[in-house]
Amino acid sequence: MDWTRETSEWDPKMARIVMKFGGTSVAGLDRIRNAAARVKAEVDRGNEVAVAVSAMAGETNRLVALVTDISKLHDAREYDVVVSAGEQVSCGLMALALQSIGVSARSWLGWQLPVMTDDVHGKARIQLIETQEMIRRFGEGQVAVVAGFQGLAPDGRITTLGRGGSDTSAVALAAALQADRCDIYTDVDGVYTMDPRIVSRARKLDRITYEEMLEMASQGAKVLQTRSVELAMKMGVRVQVLSSFADTPGTLVVDEDEIVEHQVVSGIAYSRDEGKISLLGVSDRPGVAASIFGPLAEASVNVDMIVQSTSADGKSTDMTFTVGKADFERAMEILNRIQSAVGIKAIKTDQNVVKVSVIGVGMRSHAGVAQTMFRTLAEKGINIQVISTSEIKISVLIAEEYTELALRALHTAYGLDTD
Amino acid sequence: MDWTRETSEWDPKMARIVMKFGGTSVAGLDRIRNAAARVKAEVDRGNEVAVAVSAMAGETNRLVALVTDISKLHDAREYDVVVSAGEQVSCGLMALALQSIGVSARSWLGWQLPVMTDDVHGKARIQLIETQEMIRRFGEGQVAVVAGFQGLAPDGRITTLGRGGSDTSAVALAAALQADRCDIYTDVDGVYTMDPRIVSRARKLDRITYEEMLEMASQGAKVLQTRSVELAMKMGVRVQVLSSFADTPGTLVVDEDEIVEHQVVSGIAYSRDEGKISLLGVSDRPGVAASIFGPLAEASVNVDMIVQSTSADGKSTDMTFTVGKADFERAMEILNRIQSAVGIKAIKTDQNVVKVSVIGVGMRSHAGVAQTMFRTLAEKGINIQVISTSEIKISVLIAEEYTELALRALHTAYGLDTD
Repeated sequence: MDWTRETSEWDPKMARIVMKFGGTSVAGLDRIRNAAARVKAEVDRGNEVAVAVSAMAGETNRLVALVTDISKLHDAREYDVVVSAGEQVSCGLMALALQSIGVSARSWLGWQLPVMTDDVHGKARIQLIETQEMIRRFGEGQVAVVAGFQGLAPDGRITTLGRGGSDTSAVALAAALQADRCDIYTDVDGVYTMDPRIVSRARKLDRITYEEMLEMASQGAKVLQTRSVELAMKMGVRVQVLSSFADTPGTLVVDEDEIVEHQVVSGIAYSRDEGKISLLGVSDRPGVAASIFGPLAEASVNVDMIVQSTSADGKSTDMTFTVGKADFERAMEILNRIQSAVGIKAIKTDQNVVKVSVIGVGMRSHAGVAQTMFRTLAEKGINIQVISTSEIKISVLIAEEYTELALRALHTAYGLDTD
Repeated sequence: MDWTRETSEWDPKMARIVMKFGGTSVAGLDRIRNAAARVKAEVDRGNEVAVAVSAMAGETNRLVALVTDISKLHDAREYDVVVSAGEQVSCGLMALALQSIGVSARSWLGWQLPVMTDDVHGKARIQLIETQEMIRRFGEGQVAVVAGFQGLAPDGRITTLGRGGSDTSAVALAAALQADRCDIYTDVDGVYTMDPRIVSRARKLDRITYEEMLEMASQGAKVLQTRSVELAMKMGVRVQVLSSFADTPGTLVVDEDEIVEHQVVSGIAYSRDEGKISLLGVSDRPGVAASIFGPLAEASVNVDMIVQSTSADGKSTDMTFTVGKADFERAMEILNRIQSAVGIKAIKTDQNVVKVSVIGVGMRSHAGVAQTMFRTLAEKGINIQVISTSEIKISVLIAEEYTELALRALHTAYGLDTD
């Protein structure tokens, strides 16, 4: 990635910040006005402000449904034309809302700045954001309202960044502007140890490391898009997650060395978005894994947890893995096609599963974290179907019916409950 | 206006046509599919096709309401950002619908071709359409789907062309492409002698001259935007108005010399969009008209029918005129402000009026057309409040309650009834 690093003359008293408002924060005109008032407050403090906006809540789904209904195998370039209209509307409205309360503002569409991306339509990556004109206008006191989620491909066509891409737009904008802070306004007031709708004693975290946030996001916590966290980590952007409906401080996503006292476990995430596939009696020969996972990868099926075990007869092997539910049908088509050629005796599936992950950078220096997880689930009579681990995360796959039971028990076991 | 006139190699058997689909013709996915099938039919005939699309019916109103609600005195540049999103969506969907039935197609937004306009946001005029790339792709069999209603200002911001502007987009596109025909698909199957919802015996016209169509459009017939007809006349674009829901021929809008036998009157139009203002006892001195209509013009109030008569006392004058109902409040504010300075005794208003116009190029060579109108209305006991005429049109202002009575009587009197 290549970032333009133009800066206006620097006033040490003033900060440059990016404020990102998600779909629920701009869901209607009153909410847009509310968000505009928050922008005005930052401007009144003497700050330079760029605003990144999502589409009004529900709008992207509506537009995606139109595209999907009219053409199942749609041209991703036309998908991007249609779906990017949502952010176009909300960023124009935000500029108007700001103007109407006396804040100088103008909207910038992805192609206007431009926000240059690669040409992977529907899931493009930002390569460069031109900031010169925005920064010049900061000097005139103007707020830049940037349409999130969208960019411009090298061939001059509109791209979008994939669902939740406005978070990435905001972080990339903050990096390009060398902003002091990137505030992500959403409908929750921060990052919690656990989804408070499931575990009422979940606690809001004041700070979380990039690594933990990344695991939380990729393991199912929907506060921030995974790629935005990766980018923030890489570019050192200080991200704050906070509510646009409350005046409480949010959660800061920061470098590990900014957190003095680590919890062993910072949070627990879960995902119902995966299904389990077991291949039984796979002939055990070199290259067999490649012959299975190769075709899946070619079809862009993301395979997550994988375990392999020798089967009962000792001559073949059993393989179990999970794939996203959206990819499930496609994965099964491929597996059925290659079954006899690869030599798979039987295929079993189970979509009633949930992946539960405990996450914390403190794990690196503490033994027994996995043991606590296994013991806690065993005490509740919950069978673990698959296990996968990383340096700062342990994930298990269990039957979906135990979701709440498991999450509450783990939350208590790791000492995360409030009071 | 300056038009790019690039052409691909010319095949005498093939025609180049522009097909424009209005809001009701793309109101839902089924209708978009229906429109796409019509495009495919033209492509299958070997024609080169550019499609211009409006926003899905109701969408522009929805977007305009969002803008108006968030900011009464809105920045027209941001208005254009928000409102142009409607055509962006429908042109992407149309491209997808075409692709899904095997027609090569791509969408073009106003800024992509580009459609260069002036910088009068909200009511911009097209100055140039780049057609080179479209024409190159015609040669590869690709259909160009162009977002109507939108363009690009010299400063790189989105413009819109004013309500109904997609008609103008289509005609301008046809002119720039030197197209053989510009087919305007709408929810009626042509231009009628009179609105058939009011006069059931109204007759569809096979042909109408540009001049007549222009008068019909500006006198209230809502089939085509006035500016699009002006442009078609100026650029010699052959326009056809036809239904996207029926397989009947429409109405051709053509040069006068293409019509052999003229009806004296081709059609009757009416408009309820005007209100009447009478200024009584205006001091009769040179420059008084300018002192009244000057301030109105400065405030962009369009004044239509004007009559002036000496008042009863012989020392002063009465002035009556009509203004669009949308401008009515603004006009009254101005008149009240200048009333004493100009010397106006009293101001009377009446918004319960309708303007009825009979239109026909045959009028030029036929006397007695006005007389027929006055006699017919008199026989029905309808009082004429204001009269205005042009070479091919006579308009009268009457009380609104007589609308249907007057229209039916005139339709019969001019021999326009079917059978």
